[in-house]
Amino acid sequence: MAKDRLWWERDDLGYREGRLHIGGRDLATLVAASGTPTYVYSSVRVRDNLERLRSALGAHGVEHDVYYAIKANRYAPLVTYLKLLGRCGIDACSPNEVRYARQLGFEESEISYTGNSTSEADLEVLQAHPGVLVNCDALSTIRRLGRRCPGRTIGIRFNPEQGAGYNDQLRYAGEKPTKFGVYRDRFDEALALAREAGLHVKRLHFHMGSGYLGSALDVFESVLERVAALLDAHPDIRTVNVGGGLGLRLAEADVPVDVERWAALVARHLGSRGVRVQVEPGDYLVKDASVLLVRVNTVEDKAGTRFVGVDAGLSIQNLYAYYKVPYVVAPLRRAAGATERVTIAGNINEAIDVFGEDVELPPVAEGDVLALLNTGGYGAAAASNHCMRGEFLEYLLLGDG
Amino acid sequence: MAKDRLWWERDDLGYREGRLHIGGRDLATLVAASGTPTYVYSSVRVRDNLERLRSALGAHGVEHDVYYAIKANRYAPLVTYLKLLGRCGIDACSPNEVRYARQLGFEESEISYTGNSTSEADLEVLQAHPGVLVNCDALSTIRRLGRRCPGRTIGIRFNPEQGAGYNDQLRYAGEKPTKFGVYRDRFDEALALAREAGLHVKRLHFHMGSGYLGSALDVFESVLERVAALLDAHPDIRTVNVGGGLGLRLAEADVPVDVERWAALVARHLGSRGVRVQVEPGDYLVKDASVLLVRVNTVEDKAGTRFVGVDAGLSIQNLYAYYKVPYVVAPLRRAAGATERVTIAGNINEAIDVFGEDVELPPVAEGDVLALLNTGGYGAAAASNHCMRGEFLEYLLLGDG
Repeated sequence: MAKDRLWWERDDLGYREGRLHIGGRDLATLVAASGTPTYVYSSVRVRDNLERLRSALGAHGVEHDVYYAIKANRYAPLVTYLKLLGRCGIDACSPNEVRYARQLGFEESEISYTGNSTSEADLEVLQAHPGVLVNCDALSTIRRLGRRCPGRTIGIRFNPEQGAGYNDQLRYAGEKPTKFGVYRDRFDEALALAREAGLHVKRLHFHMGSGYLGSALDVFESVLERVAALLDAHPDIRTVNVGGGLGLRLAEADVPVDVERWAALVARHLGSRGVRVQVEPGDYLVKDASVLLVRVNTVEDKAGTRFVGVDAGLSIQNLYAYYKVPYVVAPLRRAAGATERVTIAGNINEAIDVFGEDVELPPVAEGDVLALLNTGGYGAAAASNHCMRGEFLEYLLLGDG
Repeated sequence: MAKDRLWWERDDLGYREGRLHIGGRDLATLVAASGTPTYVYSSVRVRDNLERLRSALGAHGVEHDVYYAIKANRYAPLVTYLKLLGRCGIDACSPNEVRYARQLGFEESEISYTGNSTSEADLEVLQAHPGVLVNCDALSTIRRLGRRCPGRTIGIRFNPEQGAGYNDQLRYAGEKPTKFGVYRDRFDEALALAREAGLHVKRLHFHMGSGYLGSALDVFESVLERVAALLDAHPDIRTVNVGGGLGLRLAEADVPVDVERWAALVARHLGSRGVRVQVEPGDYLVKDASVLLVRVNTVEDKAGTRFVGVDAGLSIQNLYAYYKVPYVVAPLRRAAGATERVTIAGNINEAIDVFGEDVELPPVAEGDVLALLNTGGYGAAAASNHCMRGEFLEYLLLGDG
């Protein structure tokens, strides 16, 4: 790697002799064979992200289990890789995700389920998988699950009334009421309902949002304090699922979550009382393990803005268009010298279909390939065939190349 | 129909003896057989929407062709119905849409193509379909299409620098530069380039946005004036495609586009000079011809908000979650008496996954079915398998029931 690394370069992602590599692979070579648009996932990075989380918790003596939130990326080879790695279970949020995890070899006991707006059809599938660890998100779910599965052990998703994420859209708890979980003011009612229904509440689950950054660790601690107060009142609850949502550095100015500090907080407020901790990273494992390769087909100035049109759109990658979550955009060959500010435009017929605005890039030519970084979560997994532009390839890189 | 119609009721949509009907069908009966979630499309309403547009233009003596913007809803039975009706062609925006229209029996000459960020792969397909009416959206496209298809007749998509839509996200031209079309300041350059490349520019295309309401007819007229000025300068251009985007009444306070007034404007500024007019309605034909039937599984008060959870989510209908375009929510049985304000929550694990907030409804119970109106465009067509909750049914109602 060059000494003058760009802020986002890592040992396993960056320029080697001026050519962009991930997981030891030269992307220009890969794309020459694969074509575009193509998602490339580095299994090693996924593993490293998982191990970083586990190591931090382990170093602080926290007994824990990790469940990969499969909604982030369900590419079968990647999930199979994780199964074979044997270091995490699956966090599912729908019946089909439960079935899929089973199809890929995960045991029921390795599957944690936290859904919302839970239907009778959903409950029927959970009933057919008695070993799956179900967290109930509503009193209604407790009532109806109890009817079907008396005697079952459950968790309750608790809405901590505080949250954080990459932005307001991605905050799942806070001042504005959300559909998620049981609020404090009805928690005792939920427990009574569970007792009545013959369910055993042994777990507490919460989730703050998607993509909370370092600055939100105070909020995380405040939530842990609320949880600790609940545990004080309910000593039967011996497991706490702290959700997922750990945010990454997406722009140079971002301060990502310091996993060491995060784990220390978990240890202080939960580990210290001997509860078992569950974590559900999804995006955190896969987001920065991926690049989406797109080919530039149009470079054109329109009304004072330079538009760089590429052969993909919000149909296969919608995080910027819908959520304003930014990507790093990188050419496959590093160029020195002047840069220019451009808008990266997708190929869907909507004005919001852009991959970035005011993106600073060296001059780009039609035919060039660009890598969109941090596209591994909620990219392919949320793809549609809108405008019948739903096609893409996926490559899982095994090993370091 | 009851005399005390709700504002959104029509002859073909509303309560008959207290039961919600569309196209003459009782939806409670239909859903008992089909289950949920289910999209129901009324072919008669689609036809009526098409004929309203054609009649208005015809009444004003405007020679015209209509191309259905298939990206709004590509459900094969519906598109086949339109083909057999024989009153419109297809507006395509991607190679696969062109191929699909051909598969469903549309001739090349019945297909209009307006894409953006046009790749070489896109051009290859257009080259293989020499009869398709191509509108170029960029100088780059003109240059590259000319290389492949010298002698071809083309249109140019013109960015009118003014636009309107249901909201800012859906405005495709305006103060903020968009990726769409050739701006006025480069239009002559585009023509010169076409000449150089041996292409014959015979059409002008523009599009203001998705869902412009009655209040935007002034903007529409102003755009027509800009177009007329271009036609004055370029008398070779004998066809103008005025795009789609006519908005409907989605909320009681909305003033929809008065199609008569709209047609009168087209006649005054274009018809009067003998140019042929093309129109590309997509949403306008299908949006209000559909209901999405969803079943309530959870009714629960959380932090002062009553959440009504249903068995569908933004994976299969994302207009409110991503675009804040509202639906009318209607119970299948009309109830008199008190109403309450609720949030309709979907089953995807994201806080933005709601179908409406502060929706006024009669009291709703778990097990009830709700109809989401105005879901026929960009619903099923933009569906994903996010959270593996991508399943739904589609019914095309033929005839009046």
